[in-house]
Amino acid sequence: MINNILITGAGRSSGALIDYLSRFSVESGWTLTVADVSLEAARSRTRGHSNAKPVAFDVHDSEARAEQVSKSGIVISLLPPQFHQLLAEECIRQGRHFITASYLTSEMRSLDEQAKKKGVLLLNECGLDPGIDHMSAVNIIDRLRTEGAVLKAFRSYTGGLVAPESNDNPWGYKFSWNPRNVILAGQGTAKYIYEGKFKYIPYNRLFTDIEMISVAGVGNFDGYANRDSISYRKTYGLEHIDTLLRGTLRSPGFCRAWNVLVQLGMTDDSYLVTGLPDLTYASLIRSLLPASFDSISDLREAVASFCHLPSEGEAISMVAWTGILEDEPVGIPDASPARILQHLLEQKWVLKPDDHDMIVMQHRFDYVKDGLSKILYSDLVVQGIDSVHTAMAMAVGWPLGIVTKLLIEKKLNLTGVHIPVMKSIYDPVLAELEGLGIKFEERTTG
Amino acid sequence: MINNILITGAGRSSGALIDYLSRFSVESGWTLTVADVSLEAARSRTRGHSNAKPVAFDVHDSEARAEQVSKSGIVISLLPPQFHQLLAEECIRQGRHFITASYLTSEMRSLDEQAKKKGVLLLNECGLDPGIDHMSAVNIIDRLRTEGAVLKAFRSYTGGLVAPESNDNPWGYKFSWNPRNVILAGQGTAKYIYEGKFKYIPYNRLFTDIEMISVAGVGNFDGYANRDSISYRKTYGLEHIDTLLRGTLRSPGFCRAWNVLVQLGMTDDSYLVTGLPDLTYASLIRSLLPASFDSISDLREAVASFCHLPSEGEAISMVAWTGILEDEPVGIPDASPARILQHLLEQKWVLKPDDHDMIVMQHRFDYVKDGLSKILYSDLVVQGIDSVHTAMAMAVGWPLGIVTKLLIEKKLNLTGVHIPVMKSIYDPVLAELEGLGIKFEERTTG
Repeated sequence: MINNILITGAGRSSGALIDYLSRFSVESGWTLTVADVSLEAARSRTRGHSNAKPVAFDVHDSEARAEQVSKSGIVISLLPPQFHQLLAEECIRQGRHFITASYLTSEMRSLDEQAKKKGVLLLNECGLDPGIDHMSAVNIIDRLRTEGAVLKAFRSYTGGLVAPESNDNPWGYKFSWNPRNVILAGQGTAKYIYEGKFKYIPYNRLFTDIEMISVAGVGNFDGYANRDSISYRKTYGLEHIDTLLRGTLRSPGFCRAWNVLVQLGMTDDSYLVTGLPDLTYASLIRSLLPASFDSISDLREAVASFCHLPSEGEAISMVAWTGILEDEPVGIPDASPARILQHLLEQKWVLKPDDHDMIVMQHRFDYVKDGLSKILYSDLVVQGIDSVHTAMAMAVGWPLGIVTKLLIEKKLNLTGVHIPVMKSIYDPVLAELEGLGIKFEERTTG
Repeated sequence: MINNILITGAGRSSGALIDYLSRFSVESGWTLTVADVSLEAARSRTRGHSNAKPVAFDVHDSEARAEQVSKSGIVISLLPPQFHQLLAEECIRQGRHFITASYLTSEMRSLDEQAKKKGVLLLNECGLDPGIDHMSAVNIIDRLRTEGAVLKAFRSYTGGLVAPESNDNPWGYKFSWNPRNVILAGQGTAKYIYEGKFKYIPYNRLFTDIEMISVAGVGNFDGYANRDSISYRKTYGLEHIDTLLRGTLRSPGFCRAWNVLVQLGMTDDSYLVTGLPDLTYASLIRSLLPASFDSISDLREAVASFCHLPSEGEAISMVAWTGILEDEPVGIPDASPARILQHLLEQKWVLKPDDHDMIVMQHRFDYVKDGLSKILYSDLVVQGIDSVHTAMAMAVGWPLGIVTKLLIEKKLNLTGVHIPVMKSIYDPVLAELEGLGIKFEERTTG
């Protein structure tokens, strides 16, 4: 028996997972290998964990891939999504389980039959969102069904935010995960079901199509649609539901201000801004404004006029706060507007060592039972503990860790390609998460 | 000597080129091979041309590629752009010249050194737009420079339209080239220089950032920016110009109405509309409208309200004319919105056998000479002759044919990767085009 767990990727959200699995593996006699392209990153994550070993690892190196997978019974990938397939294919070849928090792709799905033949589990979407959201939602959907309720609408919103006491900027936002993903969030076309109609929301309208979401104890949020909700009809067993929407939460006002940046084209990652020596943020914004606004000499006024917003209003003030209207050098050559925006916001939306992040999730179930219409809300609020145990790192890492433990303890007997919507996963994972302080609060109205 | 010309692709715009080269090759003792994935298409294009041979040809088949290139001295590709590189690489391997009307890619540019070593010309952008526009513009730029003028601004607009006498629809448009390219036109970010500033125009604003262009004899047009004009500063030798803009012409009002379709998301080609049996155009438009417009029961009113346009105004009337607001079955399964729109418009924007298409091009040069500011306009209007000799087919095909002839007659001695901006190409090509009726008219004001 090969009793080693391989974690690939030692980034921002790996700390809580490594701590969790290190503790468990000491108890169970397993070891842990943390593999990253930067040996230094792997070293800093494994420091103080006697049974965890850092290694330098390039996922593109097929020999290194084969070697590390061969030495491990279970592989957890925290790498960027585009690298999962390489690892999953190697895991199938060598008969190892593979777990990730990333969205299931059709490419990954196509490995289902091979995985079953080899007795291997390829588990995807097993982090926070996607992950805990699926488990907690399907748990309630299954319960309501057992109780004889008919579900009419399901909405689920999640946000990775900053805790109120650590908020010192008008966006109510700091980076608690990969900044690039935050900048590019929502690109593509969002899809959901609303009152019996499919809805397709192009990116350029995404941040105007928002809903206000109230969560007890933490207040109101902007909610906007996240990716393809329609595909979860089948996954959740809700083929005939009238409304099905997964979304993302941001502080109130965030979406309106972010939309200014989207409309300007600052989140465009499709081309490089080149041939402009001495490029400043202000000159880039001028380049993005239609020529008809060139006659407005004050840039803030020009942007406000372009967006049909008051120049002293909240949204434009938030945009101005970032510094993007200033005549300051951009300082990075040949980058896309999105990369330039990321560079700027990485200096502004910093989660400082003493700051706490916060996860907020809300499910809303509209159902009919015994002839009565009711609404059930299930809310989750998690605050970060420190800069390693951020709410994000715990909420993404722990589900991965708990499933790994279930596999090692032979408490999970599942093969093929899956996401965690089955009782055999969500029951033990939600129970252990609750013990760790990740606990939903329910209330029913109507 | 291998005296055969290979034309790959026997689509819509190949007829005029095949006629031209067939005539020339009879005189010069060359032969012509027309290769298409559909033997029937190749046959119908070569019918009546004794020295032209149709062959079935799959560009993905490397053996067939090597065989057809080996049998030919010159290769002209009319295939979709993504296939040019395969052919160009084969041409270099076998030392054959390669000519296409498509935009030069950086991948193609990287073949420059190899092509020079092999004594091979890889000529790109040698059709109408890009093609005739480059040749005619640089011809004038070179002349103005010789005369001591300093160029301040250069604008160039081209449109492939329908002739006024054949126009029977409110869009003033019928398909005279690849419909898919028309539907997707402008996706990406347009780039140009305006009064000393670089301008980046995201797709979702492209059809609102328009200029009115007047062309003597044919009236006014909407002009919108086309792709990356900034890169032509260097190509045209205009490094210090204040304004540089290449654009596309459409009938007045076209852009405003097309923008309704763009804003709705009907030109989105990034996902498939699935899971909707009995999909109708009207239900698709409902899916694309934000939920807040669901309460407006009349679809035309809802679309008008969404776009802030009067429901009986010109733009909404044009959109309604397409039939896209009707409860008619779409009839094609699992297609993108863009593909569905193409399917609909292919039934509406048909160039009938007796219809004539029309090419309109206008260059505008703002320059200073002897201390005086002047504007030179150079206009081109070409009407189609019949359904084979469309203005588009002639204007794309003839420049390719003339350059082929120059190579065969050893009147062009150029190797490497190029676009036609040198006197050795534009002088003979423009002269022969003028003889064929493709003739610019100039006027100077100021």
